[in-house]
Amino acid sequence: MNAPNRATLWGRVLADELAESGLEAACIAPGSRSTPLTVAFAEHPEIDVYSHLDERSAAYFALGRARRTGKPTALICTSGTAAANFHPAVMEADRARVPLLVLTADRPPELRDSGANQTVDQVKLYGDAVRWYAELPEPEADERKVRSLRTTAARALAETTGVQPGPVHLNCPFRKPLEPTAVPGDVPDRFAETAAARGRDGPFVETTDGTRRLSDEECRPIARALETADRPLVVAGPADPTALVGLEPAAVTELADRLGAPVLADPLSGLRFGPHVEGEREDEGGNPGGPRSIYGGYDTYVGHMPPPDAVLRFGASPTSKPLRHWLRDAEAQQFLVDPAGAWREATFTATDLVAAEPAAVVDAVLEALGERDGRADGWLGRFDAAERHHWTVRDQALTADALEAAPFEGAILASVLSNAPDPATVFVSNSMPIRDADRFGRPRAADLTVLANRGASGIDGIASTALGAGSATDDPLVIVTGDLAFYHDSNGLLAVDRCDVDATIVLLDNDGGGIFHELPIEAFDPPFTEQFKTPHGLDFEALGDLYGLEFERVAPVDFSDAYGRSLERAGTQVLSVEFDSKGSHRRRDALAERVTDDVETRSDS
Amino acid sequence: MNAPNRATLWGRVLADELAESGLEAACIAPGSRSTPLTVAFAEHPEIDVYSHLDERSAAYFALGRARRTGKPTALICTSGTAAANFHPAVMEADRARVPLLVLTADRPPELRDSGANQTVDQVKLYGDAVRWYAELPEPEADERKVRSLRTTAARALAETTGVQPGPVHLNCPFRKPLEPTAVPGDVPDRFAETAAARGRDGPFVETTDGTRRLSDEECRPIARALETADRPLVVAGPADPTALVGLEPAAVTELADRLGAPVLADPLSGLRFGPHVEGEREDEGGNPGGPRSIYGGYDTYVGHMPPPDAVLRFGASPTSKPLRHWLRDAEAQQFLVDPAGAWREATFTATDLVAAEPAAVVDAVLEALGERDGRADGWLGRFDAAERHHWTVRDQALTADALEAAPFEGAILASVLSNAPDPATVFVSNSMPIRDADRFGRPRAADLTVLANRGASGIDGIASTALGAGSATDDPLVIVTGDLAFYHDSNGLLAVDRCDVDATIVLLDNDGGGIFHELPIEAFDPPFTEQFKTPHGLDFEALGDLYGLEFERVAPVDFSDAYGRSLERAGTQVLSVEFDSKGSHRRRDALAERVTDDVETRSDS
Repeated sequence: MNAPNRATLWGRVLADELAESGLEAACIAPGSRSTPLTVAFAEHPEIDVYSHLDERSAAYFALGRARRTGKPTALICTSGTAAANFHPAVMEADRARVPLLVLTADRPPELRDSGANQTVDQVKLYGDAVRWYAELPEPEADERKVRSLRTTAARALAETTGVQPGPVHLNCPFRKPLEPTAVPGDVPDRFAETAAARGRDGPFVETTDGTRRLSDEECRPIARALETADRPLVVAGPADPTALVGLEPAAVTELADRLGAPVLADPLSGLRFGPHVEGEREDEGGNPGGPRSIYGGYDTYVGHMPPPDAVLRFGASPTSKPLRHWLRDAEAQQFLVDPAGAWREATFTATDLVAAEPAAVVDAVLEALGERDGRADGWLGRFDAAERHHWTVRDQALTADALEAAPFEGAILASVLSNAPDPATVFVSNSMPIRDADRFGRPRAADLTVLANRGASGIDGIASTALGAGSATDDPLVIVTGDLAFYHDSNGLLAVDRCDVDATIVLLDNDGGGIFHELPIEAFDPPFTEQFKTPHGLDFEALGDLYGLEFERVAPVDFSDAYGRSLERAGTQVLSVEFDSKGSHRRRDALAERVTDDVETRSDS
Repeated sequence: MNAPNRATLWGRVLADELAESGLEAACIAPGSRSTPLTVAFAEHPEIDVYSHLDERSAAYFALGRARRTGKPTALICTSGTAAANFHPAVMEADRARVPLLVLTADRPPELRDSGANQTVDQVKLYGDAVRWYAELPEPEADERKVRSLRTTAARALAETTGVQPGPVHLNCPFRKPLEPTAVPGDVPDRFAETAAARGRDGPFVETTDGTRRLSDEECRPIARALETADRPLVVAGPADPTALVGLEPAAVTELADRLGAPVLADPLSGLRFGPHVEGEREDEGGNPGGPRSIYGGYDTYVGHMPPPDAVLRFGASPTSKPLRHWLRDAEAQQFLVDPAGAWREATFTATDLVAAEPAAVVDAVLEALGERDGRADGWLGRFDAAERHHWTVRDQALTADALEAAPFEGAILASVLSNAPDPATVFVSNSMPIRDADRFGRPRAADLTVLANRGASGIDGIASTALGAGSATDDPLVIVTGDLAFYHDSNGLLAVDRCDVDATIVLLDNDGGGIFHELPIEAFDPPFTEQFKTPHGLDFEALGDLYGLEFERVAPVDFSDAYGRSLERAGTQVLSVEFDSKGSHRRRDALAERVTDDVETRSDS
């Protein structure tokens, strides 16, 4: 490893070691202090570099890419407030377990708290939101220091995808010259010969990540509890990025089929969509046969079902509040499988925590399963009936006549997911869109990767996260966002051109925070309209002009056609559909009532 | 104090106590968890409330308002990433000593790290960047708890404007109901009768802030050193918001006149502009007479002057790098006056730290001053000559012919400051605009409040900070920004309409990071253009359309006319002036050379 000066050496060793350890992409915001990093990453042939002008958007873009791939993305910025702009995405990466490697350039230690310009306290800037924080030593062509740098790089990357994946922060002090200008003697020629400089063949440190598995003995009580249950259930909450890669849907459905358990599959679980979901159910007999145990309409009806008596739970807390409350109120044995052993279950009703990899647990339980003892009399059948009825009611609400009479935002999510190409990446904003995706997104035998920022559930960074996810794949990218989220990360749209990612952006514009109509604060106006609903009157066509996006206003009834056309076109289109959020809420309630009336009638009969 | 439930009580007591303690304004971003705060602040008759949709912009708006007034502004947001979006502005408030009171709503303690939605670790979220962090107790109509709440509110506000003003963070957990819905028995009727509920007449706790002053004895050596110096100097760096209010310019010029010392006044010092600056200097004799000791052109010539031998320094580190280096290289006794006793002097050449209020120090030194012993042979005269020549060269570069031939960004800053109405608030972005304001902003006997975010010197939050400053005054508001800063805080422009602040926005558009042309990295392309200069090609007229701003493209030679017209119009205008940043740098260098050649010639003769 040759370098004209020590700062350049530092950047190059770091980029080299990270690339050897598997880093494939970096998002960089311009700045002076970070020059050694920027130069090294930009020149590295194995690292794809994305340039961003707003650090907040850069961080969310990196998050999206890492979430889509399950692999770490690096983030690079200069010193000062730039690093604080990364904070929201770092927080989301923490909660959502997304591997991010944050590299913040810093002034040298003697300038801290000295009144020097653009110098702030970056030490442990993100607090406990990172898996690991380290400060790099000051650059120097010293054998031990460079070995430590390589080791730190390898360790940092490994930590991002460790037992609990997440963000890691390396603070990187540099002093001038920051550019690759020659400083005679700074990096002696002979240094290029050292082991630390050259590295080894491959990574300097090879990390082998063990997997938390269950022994046969540990597995048996779980298998026994499930196979003896009368009303066994599998709940798949939002998946972690690495689990998304690791969990085998067919194994889950096999397990569910053998148990006679429905799989309630969150839209973010990686299980609601995919080749393992096949056709319609024909049989109301409650027989477990056939790999068709994926249920998606439960948000409407689950509160009206009898409680489960044994539950196997994967992933984070489900998006559906009715599901969470139903689980809370069930007196069931609940096995919560979490690879990091971190209770992610805010209703505090899990009885058993299983700290192991979900995929390994499924395999081991399948292995340990004996004959089914439990009696699922009508258990699956009731789910089948309710599920079928839910989608029938939904489909009736989606006809042109029905939509003309009663447009609602859920219809758009229904269409987005049902008509998305196979394969596709669909990124759904928080607030109402993800809830509507949960309720109206029908399980489909298509390779849809449905993603959202469900760690901290903010409405910030939506466009950037989605575009970052899109940058990692050739799948068509669909983004569903509300107007507040679209405004919040409008800067992120620069990545369409700058990072060359195309998308169909579905904008549900109800002029403000429609979700607040669902809360009791609606009755208190003021301050409801001015401080909660916050209508802004923005016409986003101008934003389309700014970022070179095609902008089309679409009536709800015409949405599916416009969506289909957009998916066939190159470039990025914004399909803006205006809604009255109150009307959407009313429609949602009315549809739910039709489903639950039916469920109640059946259970009465 | 009556309230329908405990959460409402909590919000109302907090708002009530803060208002009694002097809080006048709050910036609120919508959210559910923060409902008790939002409702209470919005309904309080003494608190002006500004609603924002992007928390990052909200925080900068609050920062700008607090900076302009020297009084704390409150900031309110919901739980989750919203709070992290405040971080950049909190960081700036820390470094720039701006009083901010950050109120983040939080989930109740049992939901933390539980997997609950929109729940993150907000404890000590901003690390050491805040003067004080406290977690409010959970709401309850309990006499002691409410007394503690009132005391905490009073203390938090006092901390924001304490010895070292800055941000304070109160984390505020709430549980449902969050809305002012009646919960019988939650706040007993008799509670309204208690002292804690009613408060006292006026604030519950009255804070009297002592001022750090010098005794006569402490003052004498400072006075003696200055009066015996041959080349005494006063340097006024960027002022703290509260000092801006407190330091009396006439007292500083009186002191300088009695010492025969030039005052090198940073454009952000509060001393470069104001009624104390009178007319042109006529006399090259070096006589101290007349209150005209304010110098502003030093950035060009100071490095060519003989070194001072005694320096009295106020404020933060000066914007001018030549000045900082000249002071570093002088073997002078340097008195650094800082009310917080925090060395803000990154060249580490101060010999004496004076931890006292600048205004009090000036008064005390004036008092202690004897007859001047020092001989300032030609000292003031040399400054006069260089200063006069600097402005002559500048003025020649501003003629229509000169501007046609050699347009440069500094010409715009010159015009902005020379032609700003009296009074006016002028907010200048970081990167090149503030440097050009420093070099080309001529001292003027007009009441200009020139502000910038010079704490951490980021280019984020510029529009919001400026509009926040503008919201606090009826002065005309002028904002000078580069294109990257304009892009970065484009969301902040929503406040023009939403918070009803008008401005003349001067956009220096050189399509990317022009400042990087001044750095050695320019020679390395790639990655210079793609990763540093980062041309984006954005046409900001569309942004004007989005936010309802009038947008006008102006040639450099026509700028002063367009500027004058804008200042007379209502509404907000964007005057976009395109520049080639390389050309601007060349012109800057050429003008500086003309000045320094003259200075050198004089010192040779």
